[in-house]
Amino acid sequence: MADYRAPRDDMDFVLHDVFRVADDWQQTPELADMMDVETAGAILDEGAKVAENLVAPLAREADEEGVKFADGVVTTPKGYKENFRQLSEGGWVGVTANPDFGGMGLPKSLSAQYEEMLCSADIAFSLYPGLTSGAIMAINSHGSDELKNHYLPRMVSGEWTGTMCLTESHAGTDLGIIRSKAIPAEDGSFSISGTKIFITGGEHDLAENIVHLVLAKLPDAPEGTKGISLFVVPKFLSDEQGNLTERNAVSCGSIEHKMGIHGSATCVMNFDGAKGWLVGEPHRGLPAMFTMMNYERLGVGIQGLGAAERSYQNALEYAKDRIQGRGAKATRNDQAEADSILVHGDVRRMLLTMKSLTEGGRAFSTWVGQQLDRSKYAEDEQVRQKADAMVALLTPVAKAFLTDTGLECTIHGQQVFGGHGYVREWGQEQLVRDTRIAQIYEGTNGIQALDLLGRKVFGSQGKLLQPFNEEIQSFLDETATGSEWIQQREQLQQALNILNGVSEEVLQKAAGDENLVNSVAVEYLHLVGYVSYAYLWLKMAIAAEPLVNEKPYLATKTKTARFYFARILPRIHSLALAIKDGSESLYLHSDDDF
Amino acid sequence: MADYRAPRDDMDFVLHDVFRVADDWQQTPELADMMDVETAGAILDEGAKVAENLVAPLAREADEEGVKFADGVVTTPKGYKENFRQLSEGGWVGVTANPDFGGMGLPKSLSAQYEEMLCSADIAFSLYPGLTSGAIMAINSHGSDELKNHYLPRMVSGEWTGTMCLTESHAGTDLGIIRSKAIPAEDGSFSISGTKIFITGGEHDLAENIVHLVLAKLPDAPEGTKGISLFVVPKFLSDEQGNLTERNAVSCGSIEHKMGIHGSATCVMNFDGAKGWLVGEPHRGLPAMFTMMNYERLGVGIQGLGAAERSYQNALEYAKDRIQGRGAKATRNDQAEADSILVHGDVRRMLLTMKSLTEGGRAFSTWVGQQLDRSKYAEDEQVRQKADAMVALLTPVAKAFLTDTGLECTIHGQQVFGGHGYVREWGQEQLVRDTRIAQIYEGTNGIQALDLLGRKVFGSQGKLLQPFNEEIQSFLDETATGSEWIQQREQLQQALNILNGVSEEVLQKAAGDENLVNSVAVEYLHLVGYVSYAYLWLKMAIAAEPLVNEKPYLATKTKTARFYFARILPRIHSLALAIKDGSESLYLHSDDDF
Repeated sequence: MADYRAPRDDMDFVLHDVFRVADDWQQTPELADMMDVETAGAILDEGAKVAENLVAPLAREADEEGVKFADGVVTTPKGYKENFRQLSEGGWVGVTANPDFGGMGLPKSLSAQYEEMLCSADIAFSLYPGLTSGAIMAINSHGSDELKNHYLPRMVSGEWTGTMCLTESHAGTDLGIIRSKAIPAEDGSFSISGTKIFITGGEHDLAENIVHLVLAKLPDAPEGTKGISLFVVPKFLSDEQGNLTERNAVSCGSIEHKMGIHGSATCVMNFDGAKGWLVGEPHRGLPAMFTMMNYERLGVGIQGLGAAERSYQNALEYAKDRIQGRGAKATRNDQAEADSILVHGDVRRMLLTMKSLTEGGRAFSTWVGQQLDRSKYAEDEQVRQKADAMVALLTPVAKAFLTDTGLECTIHGQQVFGGHGYVREWGQEQLVRDTRIAQIYEGTNGIQALDLLGRKVFGSQGKLLQPFNEEIQSFLDETATGSEWIQQREQLQQALNILNGVSEEVLQKAAGDENLVNSVAVEYLHLVGYVSYAYLWLKMAIAAEPLVNEKPYLATKTKTARFYFARILPRIHSLALAIKDGSESLYLHSDDDF
Repeated sequence: MADYRAPRDDMDFVLHDVFRVADDWQQTPELADMMDVETAGAILDEGAKVAENLVAPLAREADEEGVKFADGVVTTPKGYKENFRQLSEGGWVGVTANPDFGGMGLPKSLSAQYEEMLCSADIAFSLYPGLTSGAIMAINSHGSDELKNHYLPRMVSGEWTGTMCLTESHAGTDLGIIRSKAIPAEDGSFSISGTKIFITGGEHDLAENIVHLVLAKLPDAPEGTKGISLFVVPKFLSDEQGNLTERNAVSCGSIEHKMGIHGSATCVMNFDGAKGWLVGEPHRGLPAMFTMMNYERLGVGIQGLGAAERSYQNALEYAKDRIQGRGAKATRNDQAEADSILVHGDVRRMLLTMKSLTEGGRAFSTWVGQQLDRSKYAEDEQVRQKADAMVALLTPVAKAFLTDTGLECTIHGQQVFGGHGYVREWGQEQLVRDTRIAQIYEGTNGIQALDLLGRKVFGSQGKLLQPFNEEIQSFLDETATGSEWIQQREQLQQALNILNGVSEEVLQKAAGDENLVNSVAVEYLHLVGYVSYAYLWLKMAIAAEPLVNEKPYLATKTKTARFYFARILPRIHSLALAIKDGSESLYLHSDDDF
């Protein structure tokens, strides 16, 4: 497998030439003093070294070795522990965490780049700091000062890690029917009982303690999702100074044997009257959990992006090195017995599909990151509201579209390798296996689509689409029609019109057809994804043009943009037709017909 | 994982109600006496038992155990040896083989059904009889009587197995540059030297001898693909009675560790002056190998089909059993806490996508099987010529489209399972891993597309499209316009027109653009695939309608047909747009730009 090389140039281009995130930072008191273009660059350079030199080299062997389970103890693959220690010491576990508790406090637009690099290096490993980071955010947002002061410094430093315990064997998507119970104790703590499955990092040997965030129901809980509370349940109890005292009644019953992410421990966790503390209000656990969900979902999307980038790098190196067959006359090397397979149109099709989806994906994740930052930091109420709306709309797209296209890219990369892509030694097939889970966990991509079209678009009667629409429309209006991008500009306008037309039709029909939304939601999400990437590609092409002399690596931007409009964007036409068909053809079959 | 249940009803429907293959058999002297609807049914019923009861139960454990290699010896997973013995004794290795040498001599339309069942049961296991069957066909078609009499009876009986040794480490797709050598010996044999990679079943413990078909170059060989000869090289030499005498200089150097098909041995084979015998004419090895290639490629396509069927069965059982979440009011079970996930539109979308692609794929493989049979047996010269043309056109589509849609179906199936789809225990993720190779081996799907658009369509200047066109057009002309299928009939006509328009455009432009064909070939192949399935779905729907009372399982045919036209066929519009774009956007990047 090719050594991983972080696409730092492209990250800087997207951050500073396309989205000008430093302008945002300057207007944000929390960031103005600590962050500028240079500092950001230095941080990402360090992050790139971590990903390239520390994390990436272990990924292949960790996949072969996997996590091991015996008598409740989980052993991670060779090197993970030392790497986690180094990562922690470098401050990378607390990369987005509150500086009051030792975190770096990076804005999301920036940390998104670091996360991408970590995922390109090794998705399985990235989950340990990733889940910890999520747990930190939940406690920081909803925990009492006591909980925060006790847990956060130790989690931010990586001494303790975190998990999120939601799923039960009968309740994945539908959390309203969970059965885990929390009984109040006299000292203000709670006794937590129940079994959770699919708990990433539920048990491992990377840190001395593990802090579980657990959804459970209080005795007086209302039925359904409005009766769920959130608890902190540590593996070890500790005294006020944080010294571990006794083992809590939490244990790992077994681990899953999975298709991929073999280095990540996916645990069945048993809570047998374990001591826990309430986070936030009683029965308000789901909203508390969902505060961080937008960040988490972007984070999972970025797993797909990281894998796509790695797939492209590997496949490109292979394509350049693989000498076989002859190109068309114009492209042929007459001195050699055969040409590199890069001469073949179909190999280029696969490479450029990956390249356009990956660079488009990086722009998308940065865009969403910027909106998350504005939603969190912006002082101007209007800016913040617009950002809130954009985050609400785009988060499910980030999660699902980045991972769906991520899988597509890893499969293209594997195909470029031919038979070698199927052999484990080359590392390419691991990307397919590792990426596949990202379409499933943290809410399946079908659920993301339902969130987008059902809760967000239909739920707001289309209002949440407005800021998205306005941003693209005003970009189009500002873009000179006489430019050499006239054709792409027209295509983008057409794509936006198609999306709006389809949205209107769905809104009209959905009121009278309760099956409609969930029947067309996935195609709708993909439509939003491709329209977004078209906007971003045109934005990138126009931003790149004047900079090409100064930054030669931008020379390919405009070419890849043309490829995207020519070969990828046309996918919207089939999607629109499928959406227009509605729910009818899905409900001709009775349940018994199946 | 759900127990596998062979879709025997659907097979009978396709064979007899849609394609009326028994009419063909009656007109074929070789088949008229031995084969009729009842006999065929009895054979497939037996085949179904083999797949369901013998082969399928071992697949999961064989995946975990894998093949083992030590000191040149390969050990297959537990139970494979006994199963292969039983399969052989039942005559299933020689299912299509020449009855003169003990084969069943089944027509391909029929054996395709058996192959599908075997692949649904366990793709890895199916490769051992599958490759043997291919080697039998090559020797039967091109070997001398001496070779045939010596090898075929023992291969047909499964005492000896067969391989095909084509690929070398530097030469996969491009066989013209292979380096294996064959030096003539005085006794009429040849001394074969070279190293072959990716040899399926190159070494194993299922049979006492292995017969390798090896491509190598004679000393006086012209350069390139016109200088390749085909040799039989057995693992053990044998006397005239077939008793093994001494080990030949062939050995397995190592096996690959792969993403899937863990039960299949993929070997590096070293030939160190091994004794071999020429099959067919010197330097005519490639054409000899390609005689059976149409059968082999359909066979690989059927791997995708078999996996898709299995994926559908598993996912459907899971969807019915999984009680979670609530359906829309109309579909809700008010007595329960939650509904089966079958009520959700998105779950139906995934299930019906699988169902329509799988049943469409079964019709397609049967259609191609029927054409192969006519090409082989038809006494009428015109019928034979038409069938030859159809086989030439449709074989690459069968290989690539059945496997591309096969992967799509296994991924949908996995998604229906949610997190459980990622856990090995459930068996669903194995289908994804096992199917993925079928898009790569026996000529990657990109190469199939190049074969279709380059060699077949462009090479014949569109003539090979004519019989395909005529068949669909005359079906359309015969179909009453007043029927309830009027909308689908129009859609099929439109789809055919789009295909013809695109074909014409490519033919015109390809003469002046040597990069064009390979730049749009994959999209073109998919276009042909979706148009073909539209034809087959309409044909099936119309065939099913009058039979519904007699055969209640056909009630879903017309519903699934409507789904296909509403939700799947629209994919052609995006494909056509991408094809129209041509090669330009792929060649904006110079090699160095990548």
